[in-house]
Amino acid sequence: MSNQTFDRSRGRVTIPTDLDVVPETLEIMKRWGADAIRDCDGTDFPAELKDLDAKIYSTYYTTRKDNAWAKANPDEVQQCYIMTGFYTASEGALSIPLMKGISPELMEVNTRDDIKRWWEVMDRTTGQPLSTDDWRYDSETGCVVIDKPQAFHEYTVAFLAYLIWDPVHMYNAVTNNWQNFEHQITFDVRQPKTHKFTMERLRKFIADHPYVNVIRYTTFFHQFTLMFDELKREKYVDWYGYSASVSPYILEQFEKEVGYKFRPEFIVDQGYYNNQYRVPSKEFKDFQAFQRREVAKLAKEMVDITHELGLEAMMFLGDHWIGMEPFMEEWKSIGMDAVVGSVGNGSTLRLISDIPGVKYTEGRFLPYFFPDTFHEGGAPVREAKENWVTARRAILRKPIDRIGYGGYLKLALQFPEFIDYIESVCNEFRELYENIKGTTPYCVKTVAVLNCWGKMRAWGCHMVHHALYQKQNYSYAGIIEALSGAPFDVKFISFDDIRKDPKVLDGVDVIINVGDGDTAHTGGTEWEDPAISAAIRGFVHRGGGFIGVGEPAGHQYQGHYLQLSSVMGVEKETGFTLNYDKYNWAQLHNHFILEDVKGEVDFGEGKKNIYALPNAQILVQKDKEVQMAVNDFGSGRSVYISGLPYSFENSRVLYRAILWSAHAEEELHKWYSTNYNVEVHAFVKNGKYCVVNNTYEPQTTTVYTDKGSFSLKMDANEIKWYEIESV
Amino acid sequence: MSNQTFDRSRGRVTIPTDLDVVPETLEIMKRWGADAIRDCDGTDFPAELKDLDAKIYSTYYTTRKDNAWAKANPDEVQQCYIMTGFYTASEGALSIPLMKGISPELMEVNTRDDIKRWWEVMDRTTGQPLSTDDWRYDSETGCVVIDKPQAFHEYTVAFLAYLIWDPVHMYNAVTNNWQNFEHQITFDVRQPKTHKFTMERLRKFIADHPYVNVIRYTTFFHQFTLMFDELKREKYVDWYGYSASVSPYILEQFEKEVGYKFRPEFIVDQGYYNNQYRVPSKEFKDFQAFQRREVAKLAKEMVDITHELGLEAMMFLGDHWIGMEPFMEEWKSIGMDAVVGSVGNGSTLRLISDIPGVKYTEGRFLPYFFPDTFHEGGAPVREAKENWVTARRAILRKPIDRIGYGGYLKLALQFPEFIDYIESVCNEFRELYENIKGTTPYCVKTVAVLNCWGKMRAWGCHMVHHALYQKQNYSYAGIIEALSGAPFDVKFISFDDIRKDPKVLDGVDVIINVGDGDTAHTGGTEWEDPAISAAIRGFVHRGGGFIGVGEPAGHQYQGHYLQLSSVMGVEKETGFTLNYDKYNWAQLHNHFILEDVKGEVDFGEGKKNIYALPNAQILVQKDKEVQMAVNDFGSGRSVYISGLPYSFENSRVLYRAILWSAHAEEELHKWYSTNYNVEVHAFVKNGKYCVVNNTYEPQTTTVYTDKGSFSLKMDANEIKWYEIESV
Repeated sequence: MSNQTFDRSRGRVTIPTDLDVVPETLEIMKRWGADAIRDCDGTDFPAELKDLDAKIYSTYYTTRKDNAWAKANPDEVQQCYIMTGFYTASEGALSIPLMKGISPELMEVNTRDDIKRWWEVMDRTTGQPLSTDDWRYDSETGCVVIDKPQAFHEYTVAFLAYLIWDPVHMYNAVTNNWQNFEHQITFDVRQPKTHKFTMERLRKFIADHPYVNVIRYTTFFHQFTLMFDELKREKYVDWYGYSASVSPYILEQFEKEVGYKFRPEFIVDQGYYNNQYRVPSKEFKDFQAFQRREVAKLAKEMVDITHELGLEAMMFLGDHWIGMEPFMEEWKSIGMDAVVGSVGNGSTLRLISDIPGVKYTEGRFLPYFFPDTFHEGGAPVREAKENWVTARRAILRKPIDRIGYGGYLKLALQFPEFIDYIESVCNEFRELYENIKGTTPYCVKTVAVLNCWGKMRAWGCHMVHHALYQKQNYSYAGIIEALSGAPFDVKFISFDDIRKDPKVLDGVDVIINVGDGDTAHTGGTEWEDPAISAAIRGFVHRGGGFIGVGEPAGHQYQGHYLQLSSVMGVEKETGFTLNYDKYNWAQLHNHFILEDVKGEVDFGEGKKNIYALPNAQILVQKDKEVQMAVNDFGSGRSVYISGLPYSFENSRVLYRAILWSAHAEEELHKWYSTNYNVEVHAFVKNGKYCVVNNTYEPQTTTVYTDKGSFSLKMDANEIKWYEIESV
Repeated sequence: MSNQTFDRSRGRVTIPTDLDVVPETLEIMKRWGADAIRDCDGTDFPAELKDLDAKIYSTYYTTRKDNAWAKANPDEVQQCYIMTGFYTASEGALSIPLMKGISPELMEVNTRDDIKRWWEVMDRTTGQPLSTDDWRYDSETGCVVIDKPQAFHEYTVAFLAYLIWDPVHMYNAVTNNWQNFEHQITFDVRQPKTHKFTMERLRKFIADHPYVNVIRYTTFFHQFTLMFDELKREKYVDWYGYSASVSPYILEQFEKEVGYKFRPEFIVDQGYYNNQYRVPSKEFKDFQAFQRREVAKLAKEMVDITHELGLEAMMFLGDHWIGMEPFMEEWKSIGMDAVVGSVGNGSTLRLISDIPGVKYTEGRFLPYFFPDTFHEGGAPVREAKENWVTARRAILRKPIDRIGYGGYLKLALQFPEFIDYIESVCNEFRELYENIKGTTPYCVKTVAVLNCWGKMRAWGCHMVHHALYQKQNYSYAGIIEALSGAPFDVKFISFDDIRKDPKVLDGVDVIINVGDGDTAHTGGTEWEDPAISAAIRGFVHRGGGFIGVGEPAGHQYQGHYLQLSSVMGVEKETGFTLNYDKYNWAQLHNHFILEDVKGEVDFGEGKKNIYALPNAQILVQKDKEVQMAVNDFGSGRSVYISGLPYSFENSRVLYRAILWSAHAEEELHKWYSTNYNVEVHAFVKNGKYCVVNNTYEPQTTTVYTDKGSFSLKMDANEIKWYEIESV
């Protein structure tokens, strides 16, 4: 492939602009080779730039920025289900304050709709809902009153609330300490009046902004779950949350579709709001499917209008999953042209770049040009380097089509080194995109991550909110992050997928199950289904690989806590097997999986109380708690790991574990770097391969291609491109 | 009270003897003031000592030491239920070897009784038993064969096996490497022929040993669960286990009594054998109650014979719980005169000394005079000191009536320092017994340990086997050990007790719930019963104290993992609440509970993932994982502790936690030592109090009586006795 039509200096880059940086925008466009310009929440697009030879993106807020409409139609403000805290009755009546713990600027109790139909008071001690005769709402005090509760039972109330301030607008306002502005009220596009209004509003917006090429839909229809408390502190966040997509109007549709009565409990879910750790109930899965169908129809309507008026439709990924699930079937029917999202690490990159059925994907890179980084003493170059190098691993597996930046360009301009560095990033990105586009990189093995969500939470299956660190899950998310840049064909499959068609496992080399027991990540009650447990046991027994991390298949049932303990050769001591003597504690020295580990393996939080069955081989145990073990099961192999936070070394441990469990040790020395800080990716169809140094220091390594090896010195962060020699 | 009739130099002590130490026995009797002599397993009683002025104990083996009978009646050999391991079917038939993993010297498969009635083959993947048509037993291979199993399902077999070698005899033989002896076969006294034979055998034994005063029943009827593998290594041990007390003969009685069909699963319990960590099933509780009634009847028959022939009946505690549960109602009906048991720590001491309805209790102290301690370079004095000082705390709360030693006296004689030290122990014991007998020591508060077992597992509620260390429970057993020597009235109550009569909580100041979630120690599914959860919430709300250790009330249900999270102000992060922001991390400095702690609290294994609710006060958190917190709930107070291994310092922490949770901080300075290595016990009725130094170093402290305080220096291990001044 020659580079004759390829311009390394221009294209595939989007930059932000604002009224006060017009000449600078032109300068940066040139230096970074940008071919698209965008506005942001809080910036305006300068008239002088309207006729540039660049695409112009305009953010568009389907559900807010029109308080006149919202105020005129208070019955069509968006709603969410809220569950109060737990209140214990003592003697006498019990009053439960609905809004306790919630910012009154954010929400307002909906008493407009029939509260006896749409609210639910639960006795959490019995697990039963109260008869609607047994409680009343006191609007004076804002309390639900239970006149004759059972003494020392706990009660909760699920109720509908209006979102009287858009939560993302509130977040931006509070975080940036905005002054003198009006709270943007939400409105619900799925309600009849607002639906009609919205389609007209979109047409008007496009007509009023003739210079715009791309409508960048932000907070498309329904905001993810985001609550603030009375001190305006974040109280609850779930960027996959569906609880703010409800209204009596749509719930009546839902009831008709599914044929059973709706209960608020389906949404509030004991206060857990069906977050992604919960093994999803049938009702919640029904609800999500209903939302996907309904929301996709609505989105298609807007995309069609966008197209009709000659523009492209782009969705911002992350403020909005409800119904707009990019990995699910309905997505493709919408006809969205593009998706843009913020890149926090390799997993979030793949979350964007793997989206099917769009013309292009775009990654918004960090740091945003905000004062939190761009201030005297700030280190934007360091942040940018970390972000770029982390994401680059994933780009090399599945590239986004464009990169871009956001925020106040004016701030970035004050850091010339930053401007220089991003120029190099843009050039590097264009080159690698050119080299790898249209191909599938060389995949050593096919790996399937198995959990309750499957492809619906592909790459995001341990994310509470974006790439946010959580002490309880970084040791698991590390697996997904390692995979995001590793030479494997990665699938995400659900237990439902297996039930529907066990052939979904055909072609898979290694199954990975990672997380804590009794969560959706490992499956919980799903393992009580013989169709599941026998399918996985059969897969391994016939020669497949299995890697379990944390408490894989963890669920107490029929004599096992780890339901695959026979497969993995390990079990968790819950107390139930303390009476059994355990003699297998010897650590194996020198195992293929650990050959590149220099000191001790970092298992992150690790796990306590795991012991090995007699035939397993322990690779690492600490104080008689197994952290890593391998086991043969039938013709297959299993690897147990207690946790594996992301690092270059751990990425290599996982790489070797996958090869070992797939009986493929001999395939190690192909498109491979002996130094795990350096990785090799081959794009065979394009005749290219590259070697990347993922670290900020120079590295030396030996590179194995498909035909031999050579030594190499690499600069910090360097990427080197090579042609694949033909035979 | 005067000491005029009290002889500090004689009584309340039992020593072992043997043929080769006759004069030495007399010498030791005099020096230690022994008034009873015993034989041991493996020693013989010398004829020369028959007419001594001392009680003579003789060990008696109801169920073994008569192989002629056993061999003549193979159908009445004792039996147990065994569950095989888990076997995975692939394609084709599945063979499950019954005896795999079990010593063939220990057990023999019982094919004499109808295997289709008494065996059970389980599909552990579906949780269902197989039809008896779907499996067969191949006696050639010793396998159960399932001809058409479901591929990749797991199967187990529960079957009856004869105990062809008494497990304790086997243990003693293997441990001491006995050579040239016959395996003692068990026989089952509850079978008709053996029952009749046994009663005659007992009469004959007594007639043949006219010099014996006390029949010391060892391994009374049913051995606790103790299995060995093919290498004669211990495979499974549960000194509370009931699985070796079965036979078709008694199970048919059981069926008649309870009115439902017996299933082997009731006993094998998924391979967990109903060990004390399991929340007991109704069927197992029924079975235990049945065994208590039946075994008590049989025991009474033997005790009556013993009495009729003018002897005392003494039971050795520990080899035998089945039916002979000393804290249950049936026990008193037996009329046992005495109980003797081995003292490993304070908890095992109380396990003996708290037994009601007997004339006297006796503690067998460590070390046993065996070569493992009594060899050149051994340190028997150190072991004896540790054992004595540990037990003394508990003796001062509830004394045993006698102490004693076991093993080969000849070995002990080679350590003159040991002989001297035990002489001082015997004198000290007699003095303290004299000072405290007949009184209840001063109790600061009444504390109830709440779990599924209640008084049935009083003091032994975290013991797998005697005082054996377990990494998974020493952080919980520490609570019981601390209580065994602390000035509290300690009750053990079960959830059933509360259900039967919630008044059982009247008079209790503080409830303690300690252990891991979903175990019998914390209650598991019991918390789904409103009668339980509301009773405990009510108890605290009305002003009671609650101390939760580990994962108290831990069971996922209706929006809580810790079912008392509202009471305790803490919750476990299982992943389900990661979406909630947590702001309460500040540690309180200077709390009453921690005032005596010098460095960091030792939480033992501690707990991960515990966080505080907004109103709780954190005393200790490590890396955002709460280890200790306090909370107000209604008028009551709660203390959460992640774990508390036994130490003098932790004993003080628990002491203060109990006082604080009972609103009794002002009661601290009464019968109290400021230095926690020293304890004060008051015996008000007897007008005595003592101060004990529990350490092996001198200590200084300030002692608080009921009227004032004084400074005190104490020698290592010292105990000082004082008269209580009257006003």
